[in-house]
Amino acid sequence: MADFTQEEKEFFMAEALKEAQISLQKEEIPIGCVIVKDGQIIGRGHNAREELNQAIMHAEIMAINEANIAEGNWRLLDATLFVTIEPCVMCSGAIGLARLPRVIYGAQNPKFGAAGSLYDILTDQRLNHRVAVERGILEKECAQIMQDFFRHRRSK
Amino acid sequence: MADFTQEEKEFFMAEALKEAQISLQKEEIPIGCVIVKDGQIIGRGHNAREELNQAIMHAEIMAINEANIAEGNWRLLDATLFVTIEPCVMCSGAIGLARLPRVIYGAQNPKFGAAGSLYDILTDQRLNHRVAVERGILEKECAQIMQDFFRHRRSK
Repeated sequence: MADFTQEEKEFFMAEALKEAQISLQKEEIPIGCVIVKDGQIIGRGHNAREELNQAIMHAEIMAINEANIAEGNWRLLDATLFVTIEPCVMCSGAIGLARLPRVIYGAQNPKFGAAGSLYDILTDQRLNHRVAVERGILEKECAQIMQDFFRHRRSK
Repeated sequence: MADFTQEEKEFFMAEALKEAQISLQKEEIPIGCVIVKDGQIIGRGHNAREELNQAIMHAEIMAINEANIAEGNWRLLDATLFVTIEPCVMCSGAIGLARLPRVIYGAQNPKFGAAGSLYDILTDQRLNHRVAVERGILEKECAQIMQDFFRHRRSK
């Protein structure tokens, strides 16, 4: 499994935050994701549910699809997924199905998170694939962009 | 929420089984799905992970995407999803995110099912959308095509 210095983790999480900014500009819930293999980004994604009218189009799903196409393989065995907010049930399931060995996320999602909050899908011993999970990288920035979005939406 | 006679349920599950047959012919795990609204099929899907090299391309995901496009809406509020096998974690999450009110499936999946077996995602009171779940429609046929596939694969 790939190892990253703290600086590298923050670099890739900042790239995920750039993706979240794309969602924000389109008035989507601002969550972003990048998938990294051998030090290179092989998939990028941002939440685009409203823009594309697709229920499944979360940041992680877009990034997994892009990485699958880049690799020509549905298995992302040596890659690491960076996402600004704890993955939901669907995305946690997708991460396991893509055989990703590692997930690093910024801030928790107490209402919908499935990587430690509501569920612990990624480390469930009953499933056929386990994922190493780390949280807290650029946590403040990842949480802040979400808070700003919801505050702005409530004020409208 | 739409109501169906037993005959209608079996008709639409037979349509989902036709989708499973498409997967089978391509040597994919044979699972099929249709989404029905006002008596019409608005989305069809079959497992195409190997063919498309996309980890997320389960039958339900393909059908939800197709229905979202047909409706021009990520919410499938008045539709019913028929699927041959109990949905996995990812697909159960996607069903909730698409706001589908009802799921009817054929056979259980004790190893990976998240609509009653490993998890009960669709009826979780903590999530912001609950789904009515019914199982057992054409159960024998839905289970049989899976058994045939795995028996054939083991014998190769």
